[in-house]
Amino acid sequence: MKDANWRVAISGVKPEIDAGRFSVKRVVGERVTVSADLVADGHEVVSGDLLWRRAGERRWHHVPLLALGNDRYEAAFTAEEPGGYEYTLRGYVDGFRTWRRDLEKRLNAGQDVGDDLLLGSEVVSRAAGRAGKAERSTLETAARRLRTPAADRLTFALSEELLALVAEWPDLEAATTYERTLRVVVDRERAAFSAWYEIFPRSTSPEPGRPGTFRDLIARLPYVAELGFDVVYLPPIHPIGRAFRKGKNNALEARPGEPGSPWAIGSAEGGHTAIDPGLGTIGDFRAVLARAKELGMEVALDLAFQCSPDHPLVREHPEWFRKRPDGSIQYAENPPKKYQDIYPLDFGTADRPGLWAALREIVVHWVREGVRIFRVDNPHTKSFAFWEWLISDVRASHPDVIFLSEAFTRPKLMYHLAKLGFTQSYTYFTWRESRIEFTDYLTELTQTEVAEFFRPNFWPNTPDILPKHLHGAGRGAFLSRLVLAATLSSSYGIYGPAFELLENVPREPGSEEYLDSEKYEVRCWDLDKRGSLRHEIALLNRIRRENPAFRRNRTLRFHGTSNEQILAFSKTDDDGRNAILVFVNLEPQYVHSCFSNLYLPALSLPWDRPFTVHDLIDDRRYTWQGPRNFVELNPSRFPAHVFRVEV
Amino acid sequence: MKDANWRVAISGVKPEIDAGRFSVKRVVGERVTVSADLVADGHEVVSGDLLWRRAGERRWHHVPLLALGNDRYEAAFTAEEPGGYEYTLRGYVDGFRTWRRDLEKRLNAGQDVGDDLLLGSEVVSRAAGRAGKAERSTLETAARRLRTPAADRLTFALSEELLALVAEWPDLEAATTYERTLRVVVDRERAAFSAWYEIFPRSTSPEPGRPGTFRDLIARLPYVAELGFDVVYLPPIHPIGRAFRKGKNNALEARPGEPGSPWAIGSAEGGHTAIDPGLGTIGDFRAVLARAKELGMEVALDLAFQCSPDHPLVREHPEWFRKRPDGSIQYAENPPKKYQDIYPLDFGTADRPGLWAALREIVVHWVREGVRIFRVDNPHTKSFAFWEWLISDVRASHPDVIFLSEAFTRPKLMYHLAKLGFTQSYTYFTWRESRIEFTDYLTELTQTEVAEFFRPNFWPNTPDILPKHLHGAGRGAFLSRLVLAATLSSSYGIYGPAFELLENVPREPGSEEYLDSEKYEVRCWDLDKRGSLRHEIALLNRIRRENPAFRRNRTLRFHGTSNEQILAFSKTDDDGRNAILVFVNLEPQYVHSCFSNLYLPALSLPWDRPFTVHDLIDDRRYTWQGPRNFVELNPSRFPAHVFRVEV
Repeated sequence: MKDANWRVAISGVKPEIDAGRFSVKRVVGERVTVSADLVADGHEVVSGDLLWRRAGERRWHHVPLLALGNDRYEAAFTAEEPGGYEYTLRGYVDGFRTWRRDLEKRLNAGQDVGDDLLLGSEVVSRAAGRAGKAERSTLETAARRLRTPAADRLTFALSEELLALVAEWPDLEAATTYERTLRVVVDRERAAFSAWYEIFPRSTSPEPGRPGTFRDLIARLPYVAELGFDVVYLPPIHPIGRAFRKGKNNALEARPGEPGSPWAIGSAEGGHTAIDPGLGTIGDFRAVLARAKELGMEVALDLAFQCSPDHPLVREHPEWFRKRPDGSIQYAENPPKKYQDIYPLDFGTADRPGLWAALREIVVHWVREGVRIFRVDNPHTKSFAFWEWLISDVRASHPDVIFLSEAFTRPKLMYHLAKLGFTQSYTYFTWRESRIEFTDYLTELTQTEVAEFFRPNFWPNTPDILPKHLHGAGRGAFLSRLVLAATLSSSYGIYGPAFELLENVPREPGSEEYLDSEKYEVRCWDLDKRGSLRHEIALLNRIRRENPAFRRNRTLRFHGTSNEQILAFSKTDDDGRNAILVFVNLEPQYVHSCFSNLYLPALSLPWDRPFTVHDLIDDRRYTWQGPRNFVELNPSRFPAHVFRVEV
Repeated sequence: MKDANWRVAISGVKPEIDAGRFSVKRVVGERVTVSADLVADGHEVVSGDLLWRRAGERRWHHVPLLALGNDRYEAAFTAEEPGGYEYTLRGYVDGFRTWRRDLEKRLNAGQDVGDDLLLGSEVVSRAAGRAGKAERSTLETAARRLRTPAADRLTFALSEELLALVAEWPDLEAATTYERTLRVVVDRERAAFSAWYEIFPRSTSPEPGRPGTFRDLIARLPYVAELGFDVVYLPPIHPIGRAFRKGKNNALEARPGEPGSPWAIGSAEGGHTAIDPGLGTIGDFRAVLARAKELGMEVALDLAFQCSPDHPLVREHPEWFRKRPDGSIQYAENPPKKYQDIYPLDFGTADRPGLWAALREIVVHWVREGVRIFRVDNPHTKSFAFWEWLISDVRASHPDVIFLSEAFTRPKLMYHLAKLGFTQSYTYFTWRESRIEFTDYLTELTQTEVAEFFRPNFWPNTPDILPKHLHGAGRGAFLSRLVLAATLSSSYGIYGPAFELLENVPREPGSEEYLDSEKYEVRCWDLDKRGSLRHEIALLNRIRRENPAFRRNRTLRFHGTSNEQILAFSKTDDDGRNAILVFVNLEPQYVHSCFSNLYLPALSLPWDRPFTVHDLIDDRRYTWQGPRNFVELNPSRFPAHVFRVEV
């Protein structure tokens, strides 16, 4: 026989991830809409509130729940600052609203309500007893007025004025508070809306034969800014190991002078907090950060928590690595493959506190230097508990830090890493090709619980992945993938200049590795190469910035087309004013045409009046009406329409 | 930095109701199949167990989880006794299986595995250290064998024998145990599979003008048994109040001699533990129980926790009732309707312990008399917390007690009562008419989480409900509703003899009340009336008993038909050996025919060979093949086929 929580039951709370074990994610200014089922025993009216506060605050703010019908209720709040927030719900049997509803019913049935007004007066008196000093006498007067015979007391009894007055002081003695306190992680805007450009600093030299440095990178930054990106992501910038160094095209042995893979971190020159002397000094790096900032961009670093055999940690802390039976340190393996140039860290080492603290120190080092975005290499091969601790620890003092999870692995593992705290995640976009694949995958990412904790970042290519549909492909195919990435997902990125320069040759047929990959050698790119997509990319990034519909993924909606090779989808901003409608040719080696089958309500469009679709790519306008309209996509011009809908 | 639970994450556990707040329901001998997502960091193999025990036991039984693919795992146990059970899961990184998988990969790649065998020997040694005395030396020998150069040691390393040996002693030091312990309520078989017959004892007299008694009821029981029912449910059998007694057809005032409604419980003769003297004595009631038992049936009583103004409790405990402003006791209301003959109990009374204990005493009283089934009147107008406490308390000492919730209210409220502990529940079946209505509703009841806690009991009629489709209806319509209730749901009931005697006249057009309802007067039924459905009912109940497919609802599957007015569905037993296929005419005033569109896999039927469907109603057999077969349902013969599929 409990005293509280005994009349109202609260269940089916959304969002709630794994019974509150994990947080949902939002950005500053985004609404957190919470819904739940509330049922009470008896026939009385149920009322309730959404309670929310910043983590660490003691007092809850409360927002009244709105009944949606079928015992479902909803309310929302907006988080105004980055950091942690909490929310829960409470529900109670509402004596005043029950009395008011019944009074109305009795009046409609023509019954005498003398007794009811006396009962109502008691209900209001009790509210007065709970009220603050200021409102108490108003409520006492109201209670008296219900007891006093007067012509207008029925009007007063049913007035909105009295309801508002009493509703402020509900009887919460037997209220139910939801049994769990749920959490929101609130990030800055870039966590949800970002355009990434991955670039190897050593390949930014304009002179063939001379490897690039941070100074060359600085000279390259205006080009990246002109393309419209806001995150410049650099593969590891640390000294590269010499033992078992890989050669050109992943040859088992490097020839003299070959630079090795930046992911084989650590040499006599230092480890994860050092800078590869070939790139420059810490001063040069600071200059990179400063120049990027001037250009409205941020620099993202790569966190690859592994060591080359030459890494100082291997000597200083051999106990942080696993041993082979012969006592040597265990190199990385994915049997039967062996990676002798990489030593994985043993996250289960007996000196876990020492190792974990040292790794946190690396992150804190770069945060102190001003870095706020990290792309994390293969987080699924490291410890879950470590990531959860690290991310929460770093963000406690720097809630503006963003971690991108590079886990190309099984779906539930990718989602679990996002739950543990990763701000953004790589996805399977790179391999999705057909209409049904896009529809299924994007529906899962944007319309299910996944959208609460997993923020996709779409990449048409990476240094590790030249997908098969780009092998030998031309501008049409590259543009089709670019539009898909940039418009389906609020965050996307390209690995350049390989992408805009249409690099399309695999190391061998069927391989996803680039021929002459920058991972193993220095490249010199001709940015003025004929056919470069730089202008199209710049245009798309401008369209993304100018149209708020692109900033989120929740409003994504697919539309029908009469041709399987044309994907149609729309996005709007939260209030539906900015509406974007995209058609993409999925087989851009051919001209494709179709009739659309638009779901007009998603675009707030009328059925019976014409509307304008304005192609933001070529600035043409078309007058359409109804769901069925003709579309032709000729890849020799452009393989997509990116329409703004203008009513 | 946690020590346990840090490598394996367990989520998405099914079944799990409201994060474990409520139990799932099973009957004795039924399997509890539990599934979950398990992911680990790193590339190692994950293993795990389902842990289960009887509530109160300290030690867990464990069943190895089977991988279903996509990181989903499953295992099952069977509860052999009524009562409470608990289950949870654990997962761990499996060192031996990881080593074994990698060894196989290396061998396939033709690599040297000398070191690997040494590593494996260490893994097995560690298992020996964890093993029980009996197995320790076997494991030590196995570890030595892996270290000793010998021709067969590779075969031994990969043998099932070694795997089985080591798998018994996993390294659980860093295992993850799921954070919640979940619960199962295990009932006896009748909780899931029951056929109810509701009968007013006072209407069992064979002589018009003389009200029936328990002695008449005893004489009637063989008839009910012949019909094949196993639960005889009696409306309240207690003294009926005189104040504000309702007359024939719910007249506001009873005329002298009118018996009143059995739900207006309590008079000078006693309350909820007394017997209406008109029906007989407690001795007569015991004779009813005994005779029913002889006939293989059980008696269900009605728990209607409310009082007539004459109920002894009103005088003894006025504090258990709410007061009106004038100090009188508040009668029942559903504004603007007033029920002056009923006083509701105030479950929120200051003397809650007193009231609740008194109500429990009523249940315990009848349990002591041997009653094990209660139909609970309007539980949604009483306290949630009370029901949860009462049901759990009564079942702690008598796990064979069954409570049927008569809550015809909003869906989430009905489901919440089932979660709180009600064994079975009334449903919306009574008002479902079209194919889409049945498909949607039964899919919700049998194929979603609802099936875990809500056991439907389908009633084509009740003393309160003569549904519109039975107004003026003939045998065809009654048989159609009977077949639907008895075959769609493993538990069903009828209110008789009104049902089998085709009582079809509402009090007024459009009303769901029966004309001359037994609720307000004594009726005398002519069981031999021409057209009685007694033989059809007996046949259907026999078919239900003889075919295990009818005992559960989870295997229900709808099939297509070319005619909206024909509903087709199938059920099988758990192992699919007993397969039933039903076609019902939903508009039985007409002959309807259709082609079926069977989903053959649901019936384990081949596409390419004929099979036999054997109509258990008229004993005819048809040879069918493939999904498309012709069906005609002529209500003048019978409005349904109830086929057993015979391959």
